[in-house]
Amino acid sequence: MRILILGGDGYLGWPTAMHFSRRGHEVHLVDNYLRRRAHKENGTDSLTPILPGLRERVAAWKEITGLDMTSTEGDLVDWPVVEQVFGEFQPEAIVHYGEMPSAPYSMKDREHAAFTQTNNVIGTMNVLWAMAELAPESHLVKLGTMGEYGTPNIDIEEGYIEIRHNGRADTLPFPKMPGSFYHLSKVHDSHNIHFTCRIWGLRATDLNQGVVYGIETEETRLDARLATRFDYDEVFGTALNRFCLQAVMGIPLTVYGKGGQTRGYLNLVDTIQCVDLALSNPPARGEFRVFNQFTEQFSVVDLANIVQEAGAHHGIEVRVEHLDNPRVEMEEHYYNARHTKLLELGLEPHLLSETLVESMFDTIARYGDRVIDRHILPETRWRAPVREPQP
Amino acid sequence: MRILILGGDGYLGWPTAMHFSRRGHEVHLVDNYLRRRAHKENGTDSLTPILPGLRERVAAWKEITGLDMTSTEGDLVDWPVVEQVFGEFQPEAIVHYGEMPSAPYSMKDREHAAFTQTNNVIGTMNVLWAMAELAPESHLVKLGTMGEYGTPNIDIEEGYIEIRHNGRADTLPFPKMPGSFYHLSKVHDSHNIHFTCRIWGLRATDLNQGVVYGIETEETRLDARLATRFDYDEVFGTALNRFCLQAVMGIPLTVYGKGGQTRGYLNLVDTIQCVDLALSNPPARGEFRVFNQFTEQFSVVDLANIVQEAGAHHGIEVRVEHLDNPRVEMEEHYYNARHTKLLELGLEPHLLSETLVESMFDTIARYGDRVIDRHILPETRWRAPVREPQP
Repeated sequence: MRILILGGDGYLGWPTAMHFSRRGHEVHLVDNYLRRRAHKENGTDSLTPILPGLRERVAAWKEITGLDMTSTEGDLVDWPVVEQVFGEFQPEAIVHYGEMPSAPYSMKDREHAAFTQTNNVIGTMNVLWAMAELAPESHLVKLGTMGEYGTPNIDIEEGYIEIRHNGRADTLPFPKMPGSFYHLSKVHDSHNIHFTCRIWGLRATDLNQGVVYGIETEETRLDARLATRFDYDEVFGTALNRFCLQAVMGIPLTVYGKGGQTRGYLNLVDTIQCVDLALSNPPARGEFRVFNQFTEQFSVVDLANIVQEAGAHHGIEVRVEHLDNPRVEMEEHYYNARHTKLLELGLEPHLLSETLVESMFDTIARYGDRVIDRHILPETRWRAPVREPQP
Repeated sequence: MRILILGGDGYLGWPTAMHFSRRGHEVHLVDNYLRRRAHKENGTDSLTPILPGLRERVAAWKEITGLDMTSTEGDLVDWPVVEQVFGEFQPEAIVHYGEMPSAPYSMKDREHAAFTQTNNVIGTMNVLWAMAELAPESHLVKLGTMGEYGTPNIDIEEGYIEIRHNGRADTLPFPKMPGSFYHLSKVHDSHNIHFTCRIWGLRATDLNQGVVYGIETEETRLDARLATRFDYDEVFGTALNRFCLQAVMGIPLTVYGKGGQTRGYLNLVDTIQCVDLALSNPPARGEFRVFNQFTEQFSVVDLANIVQEAGAHHGIEVRVEHLDNPRVEMEEHYYNARHTKLLELGLEPHLLSETLVESMFDTIARYGDRVIDRHILPETRWRAPVREPQP
């Protein structure tokens, strides 16, 4: 299959690309290095050293495996780039990770909020037009987020819910209450994609993904040059990955507020497995399919406890600190999200275990001298940007 | 009250501004003349002659009534404009009509779709940031559309619905299934505004408005120079207004498809009455309030029949033509939308009547020599933009 990987330079995009290349698919990567630039501006970096760009990554892949991949450095917001990639590569499937992926980044200030929504919504809209014009049979696998739903007081279904009301019933999109301008951009995407499936007959799978953890896949283990990035800073880092790094570095785990915030989580290798299952089982033309993509639910305190216990077993004393919550969110709430559709397609979850956490400790320790510790604590705040009255 | 009218040059914005000015409020208008430019590009125009810009309209208002209004020519997407207007005018209320308002315009091609979403979503986001930074107590009255809901097979509630599911219950945003990139932009706005109410404590009323008809208000009748615009072309015209013009000009009424498409409708004077009621009864800080703003439901065929009957009474023979539907939409469907919240606040509806239709006939006939008939028929199509295979 010809598979286009948008955001192919990222934490998930690169290992996904290697996975499909190794299984005989034709893979083309697109990335605009947004994340690399944001790190540079912020003085932060990936824990793992990664090759300088797509060209070098693809060359290393060829050298190590003998397999070809192609790539384009370009921005999805730039229509001529998208048009050219679709015209030349003629994708049969598009795996779309190519968005600004950070909630704190989107909450920094007005410019970051506006950039996030324009970048994500217009980039994705360009992909939809390119599909309609140039690849109408292709299958879009779009990375969304469980954060689109927020924390409703009822069970979260997979994308749709049957509502019975005043003696009638309909199955409608599950209501969304996202918690940042970034999460909102994904909700906007979902509505736009759903619309183009309805009116143009496109086919799409929206993967509402939980928080991903882990560093390694079968392919990254082949050679150190094939490593994927690993972020732990306040902007791009996510809960479990950051906690493991804090544990190794002897920094207290930073729990925001009470830590009762519960979310879905999954291992990096399961992200790739889920994308593979989605691609192998495409929806019909006109179908907008939504999967909740995670394997287990944890509260932040649960995660901190798991890391603490793994630390004890590993001979590391792990401390936990409750910080003032920089976000506006509920710290204790009901949370129960259905996630059976991918299991029905054959997903075999790699559940979180002490062994996995300890193996992350080892990898992190190997790169310990690369840790930049000054942007791990939360700086970005969700509170209202009221200006002080002028004197 | 200091009331900012965004989109103050428009069909609804200008009569709203006059209404509040005449009732003793301080009014500031903002517009970037997007609609005037789009008409110029398209070779179309308002049926009613309107003064060349905000400056001239405000001067005429002063001359005729002795009342002052101020204005800014500027674009809401341009942050310095928004920042300056909020900083200088210090609004207590913002009536926000300042968006690209046409579904067909948004469906023309990729550029128009991307422009519509960027223009509407980022313009509104700028307003939200300006409120948070500079006018946190102010009340946003945002014009949304009933089209955000689409045509679900259950009763449409006002913004929220209580969902009982697996033994639990929550009141959540009503699911949205909008029918164009324009309608989608309004859904995106609603999610963004709701979010800023939750996290920043802003207060907002989202008016999900039906299709507006009518030409005159108390204030436009004071002097011909105070006329508001009246559009009837395929891009900016709406059903009943266009039907009345077609009747007067002896053009068959253009019903799209079967004409069973049912929507909410209201008179221009009721739009203003609803906005006044919303402003007089502001929500609390942190509340995102949604009203369904229309007074009656009609199918397109209902409207055609009403115009045909009024025509017969007026001595005009009105023909009706069913065109191939240029849109992708259901032509027969269930539709029942609640609209009681504005009635509870005191709305006194001006229902559609033969008299009103006949008075529109008279006004239209007065401007008959201004009619440009070459862009009345639908040109913009919702169908997929598949490219013909290259030879």
